[in-house]
Amino acid sequence: MARVSGKTIGRLSLYRRVLYGLLADGERSVYSHQLARLVGGTAAQVRRDVMAVGYTGSPTRGYDITDLTRAIGNYLDAAQGQSVALVGVGNLGKAILSYFSGRRPRLSIEAAFDTDPAKVNRVIHGCRCYPVDDLERVVQSRGIEIGVLTVPADQAQGVADYLVESGIRGILNFAPVRLSVPDHVYVEDIDMTMSLEKVAFFARQRKQ
Amino acid sequence: MARVSGKTIGRLSLYRRVLYGLLADGERSVYSHQLARLVGGTAAQVRRDVMAVGYTGSPTRGYDITDLTRAIGNYLDAAQGQSVALVGVGNLGKAILSYFSGRRPRLSIEAAFDTDPAKVNRVIHGCRCYPVDDLERVVQSRGIEIGVLTVPADQAQGVADYLVESGIRGILNFAPVRLSVPDHVYVEDIDMTMSLEKVAFFARQRKQ
Repeated sequence: MARVSGKTIGRLSLYRRVLYGLLADGERSVYSHQLARLVGGTAAQVRRDVMAVGYTGSPTRGYDITDLTRAIGNYLDAAQGQSVALVGVGNLGKAILSYFSGRRPRLSIEAAFDTDPAKVNRVIHGCRCYPVDDLERVVQSRGIEIGVLTVPADQAQGVADYLVESGIRGILNFAPVRLSVPDHVYVEDIDMTMSLEKVAFFARQRKQ
Repeated sequence: MARVSGKTIGRLSLYRRVLYGLLADGERSVYSHQLARLVGGTAAQVRRDVMAVGYTGSPTRGYDITDLTRAIGNYLDAAQGQSVALVGVGNLGKAILSYFSGRRPRLSIEAAFDTDPAKVNRVIHGCRCYPVDDLERVVQSRGIEIGVLTVPADQAQGVADYLVESGIRGILNFAPVRLSVPDHVYVEDIDMTMSLEKVAFFARQRKQ
């Protein structure tokens, strides 16, 4: 597979969800310019991305939505699925568990980890919570490749190191810290508080 | 106030949370290079940002953490606080309510909105849920400036339009759609599913 950028993967993920929405509305086909408008891109960009996933439908007749979502899925998803571990079952961790629970059969949070004795060995939003000490054993025995990090900032790097040692190759990091990881590990950061504070700041500034 | 970039505001928000973490650990002062390491930036960048918020401590003796967090707060936050409305109390909306509930006195989610009769007129994670039809009235009567959008993709633009008409000036958008809004409205997008799918894709690719 050729080198592909995070932006391309992000757009494909976005197309797919917009296409699911169209399917739910009873649509069967969509033109590249319509899809472009829904995601805030250009029709030329949509056509390039669609070609990249190997979909061979004709843009002049519109894309068949079912076929296109399947082509994107074959490109984005692992056929055998991928398992995710979440570390840090505080408010944010619980929120993430609740949000992703049961949404994606091919990409599911299989295990949660925390140090709090009140949380371990319980099932929280459908996900079993293990003690952090069991991380390496559970990650390796269940073939987990992806970690979601929802621990406090001061624990994030230590837990990231532990995830990497356990064999994790990708981390979705919600902690407000830039993680240092080896080159073979991909990190994507989400900082909800920062995002809300940015919105608050600029909302206020534009009023002045 | 001079024009300031979203990246600068994002960094200030990040510094502040890292500083809170240091305070919680019992630290009293921090050098610019230490703060830089914790956020993955450079000491020169930290010093520029700290100057921008008007903190006058000496970087050679280290910053007083309490004073610096206060200076950042005075710059970032509205003295009288800002109120937030959340629209769409599904799994993600509930997760966001739970995460932000009570965290920030100066930036709190004051009202939630949904169309589901089972949700309206209830208090969910500490926040009252109103019918969407009451949006304009509640936003205006409570001086709400910021909207958090956690509705499905096909409703996002319609709700955004309604938020803008009601007087909202900033939107934190979790829906997988690029919103079209007037220039005086600031939009920040967070797409958790896209982010997790990106991590999954690159985690797999790096294994190959």
